[in-house]
Amino acid sequence: MNLQLDEQGRLRHLLTTEGLSGALVSEILDTAESFIPVGDQAVKNVPLLRGRTIVNLFFEPSTRTRTTFELAAKRLSADVLNFQMEGSSKAKGEDDLDTLYTLQAMQVDMFVIRHRANGAAAHFARHAASHVSILNAGDGTNAHPTQALLDAFTIRRHKPDFARLKVAIVGDVLHSRVAQSNIHCLKALGVTDIRIVAPPALMMENPRALDVTPFHDLATGIRDANVVMALRLQHERMHERKIESLERYRAEYGLTHDSLAPAAADVIIMHPGPINRGVEIDEDVAYGPRSVILEQVSNGIAVRMAVMAMIIRNREPSNIA
Amino acid sequence: MNLQLDEQGRLRHLLTTEGLSGALVSEILDTAESFIPVGDQAVKNVPLLRGRTIVNLFFEPSTRTRTTFELAAKRLSADVLNFQMEGSSKAKGEDDLDTLYTLQAMQVDMFVIRHRANGAAAHFARHAASHVSILNAGDGTNAHPTQALLDAFTIRRHKPDFARLKVAIVGDVLHSRVAQSNIHCLKALGVTDIRIVAPPALMMENPRALDVTPFHDLATGIRDANVVMALRLQHERMHERKIESLERYRAEYGLTHDSLAPAAADVIIMHPGPINRGVEIDEDVAYGPRSVILEQVSNGIAVRMAVMAMIIRNREPSNIA
Amino acid sequence: MNLQLDEQGRLRHLLTTEGLSGALVSEILDTAESFIPVGDQAVKNVPLLRGRTIVNLFFEPSTRTRTTFELAAKRLSADVLNFQMEGSSKAKGEDDLDTLYTLQAMQVDMFVIRHRANGAAAHFARHAASHVSILNAGDGTNAHPTQALLDAFTIRRHKPDFARLKVAIVGDVLHSRVAQSNIHCLKALGVTDIRIVAPPALMMENPRALDVTPFHDLATGIRDANVVMALRLQHERMHERKIESLERYRAEYGLTHDSLAPAAADVIIMHPGPINRGVEIDEDVAYGPRSVILEQVSNGIAVRMAVMAMIIRNREPSNIA
Repeated sequence: MNLQLDEQGRLRHLLTTEGLSGALVSEILDTAESFIPVGDQAVKNVPLLRGRTIVNLFFEPSTRTRTTFELAAKRLSADVLNFQMEGSSKAKGEDDLDTLYTLQAMQVDMFVIRHRANGAAAHFARHAASHVSILNAGDGTNAHPTQALLDAFTIRRHKPDFARLKVAIVGDVLHSRVAQSNIHCLKALGVTDIRIVAPPALMMENPRALDVTPFHDLATGIRDANVVMALRLQHERMHERKIESLERYRAEYGLTHDSLAPAAADVIIMHPGPINRGVEIDEDVAYGPRSVILEQVSNGIAVRMAVMAMIIRNREPSNIA
Repeated sequence: MNLQLDEQGRLRHLLTTEGLSGALVSEILDTAESFIPVGDQAVKNVPLLRGRTIVNLFFEPSTRTRTTFELAAKRLSADVLNFQMEGSSKAKGEDDLDTLYTLQAMQVDMFVIRHRANGAAAHFARHAASHVSILNAGDGTNAHPTQALLDAFTIRRHKPDFARLKVAIVGDVLHSRVAQSNIHCLKALGVTDIRIVAPPALMMENPRALDVTPFHDLATGIRDANVVMALRLQHERMHERKIESLERYRAEYGLTHDSLAPAAADVIIMHPGPINRGVEIDEDVAYGPRSVILEQVSNGIAVRMAVMAMIIRNREPSNIA
Repeated sequence: MNLQLDEQGRLRHLLTTEGLSGALVSEILDTAESFIPVGDQAVKNVPLLRGRTIVNLFFEPSTRTRTTFELAAKRLSADVLNFQMEGSSKAKGEDDLDTLYTLQAMQVDMFVIRHRANGAAAHFARHAASHVSILNAGDGTNAHPTQALLDAFTIRRHKPDFARLKVAIVGDVLHSRVAQSNIHCLKALGVTDIRIVAPPALMMENPRALDVTPFHDLATGIRDANVVMALRLQHERMHERKIESLERYRAEYGLTHDSLAPAAADVIIMHPGPINRGVEIDEDVAYGPRSVILEQVSNGIAVRMAVMAMIIRNREPSNIA
């Protein structure tokens, strides 16, 4: 777990939010805050990573996620290369390591990695050269740390008192790296009341081990919640018969004007995107006054800039004690 | 229509050439003229859009067109992202708007949009945030304004007296956004003699409404013309039985050394590219002394730089009265 | 052949290593040497090609090779565009020339071209405008000159006395543009003892014409060799029945700890990548102490920077005598 920290406990890779201290998470969010004004300027570039090379190494296609990292890197003036590959079908993933070894020999400073396999980011970090950092952009159902950090950042801007928060995460938590990473991140920041709302077939196996409270009923789960976060429902869950139909799912777990009634009056609505309109969330909720979904997108650029800038800064010789 | 102009009548989006004044078109062409020397320098970049983000959002694949916009943006020192998507199959295109909303939340300054649906660019412009401009790179059979502007620019460099011009547009005008946009643009610049030459099945429905003269016979249509513009024949027209065969089409409407005899001695030959050699145009015509086809390509970079630079400049706070 | 040199005998295109003088190859390697420290700096960019446009025009997909050229161009501060196309199926390749003509009209300075057809790079160079240079990134089974130059560069760093070298190239030399280009390049540098080791079905047709010595037996072919270079075995060779099985190939020609015993004690092991683990080379050899495979990758960036910088410099007006 400490693979991602250097000897001074600073960020060297970003693999997971699990095990990150509240202080380190807060430092990331504070750094991200400093990048928010950059996005509002006509000239949105800062020269922090000029001459650095960042490679988006995606073994699972995702134009949208890749774009957020590409934009964050370009705003920092880095050179960015996109490298889309089929992930290796071999159990040990040696071919994927060959790709890593080859690309890092080209003096790449950082890899943004997305992979279907749980633990892929840590696997790469363990084998990476000392001049290389790994940034996990989603590995299997394991972790998606930058999403969790941008969610925490968005929440903090609206509700900075984490100790009093009631957060409900609604949907397919069983397969969700977003839910996993959010739970670890929010707990590190001091959130104690985290509810998981999901149908039985999509509930995580041991919610008590994560110290979160499971609910199968939406109204009960979101009662008085200040934050309600919907997860994207993958259509393949229907083919796997984990859910009966999209209509039934919406009726029971969809965030609608009516279904949100039990939540707190000041609730904010979140979603990692892209939304399935009329399935896990209605259009008027997604773009309504309580939604912060598009703020999440904007904040995602600042948070990714922060992580990239911190990791590179930590590796500067002048910063090594 | 005035969706693309701001309150001072300046360019805010570029959606269509329909309704643009001759003065505004001339301003664009003059601005493009100022960028022509840049292409001849060793260092072809100007810092006008440094720190701006331009996204090529293509719902219809076109490597070639995307490249011209990407290059224009890079020559202006903007950061460019390419985003290739399947267009939504839904009638109202909500999913496409979700993509717009998400990307513009990343502080994108301008979207270059290509889409299969007529009116898609205007649809995006109506829903775009106030900090975002839309540049239409072709929507259905509706409009392709930068192509028309670069065509007008190319004509002006050779034949600046628009009032005396005789322009013939030859080919599949029924499905051609290029023809549509050229007609509006040339009329704004004062061209009065515009002929449309097409087989009956590919003739536009109401040429008189556009104040152009229809011809089914090539020799008659191009008689004394100073400008002959061939359109690309999509091979699907043959499957739709709109044309009998490529050979027959070439025999009747192909631009060849012989078929061009009735045109004026000083005629220039144009084509939006890519050409179908030996169908709508012969190789020796396309690369012959009267052809300006490759000039069109070169000029396309300068014209796109001009449109991008003008739109961004018009949005500067210091330029708002 | 002299198509690639200007009137002063300087590099104008890079199409093949055939016919390059030892002095010119050495100048390229010396220039590459000057770029090696750049890769070790935090800021890896030099402004030599700022404002220049380089297009990767790949008619055959290769993410890995494209990346090396893209990175080299970006490290030189050039603007880079990637243009992936299907190669024309037509015998004379006119459509591919249309692509060249169109792109060069956009004031492109250099094309990096990969194509399935032998001689494609020279074909493009013959038809390119005077402001354009062609860099061959692999054409059919003909040539891959930057690979040969980076191989020579890597060898020189370890074993600068070319006259005393014994080099063995092992594998599918029949289809290998890498082998072809290496033989020409090494001979230009003064290597006299070049051995080709291949099964009969994969041996080049006339090795004596190239003044290299053919072997069918690995142990004999690599005896006392200071450099052993494995070639990648394309799996299609099995479908073509050129080899019996991967297992049999490995047993007879695979570089393993044991099979390398007859080589010199100071042998270095090379491979152009990507490797087929356990086929033409074992993992422990590829990443073992005698392997320079990852150095080849690193050196490839410096060598490609050198070629690009030299070609552009040679075209500067101030450098034309």
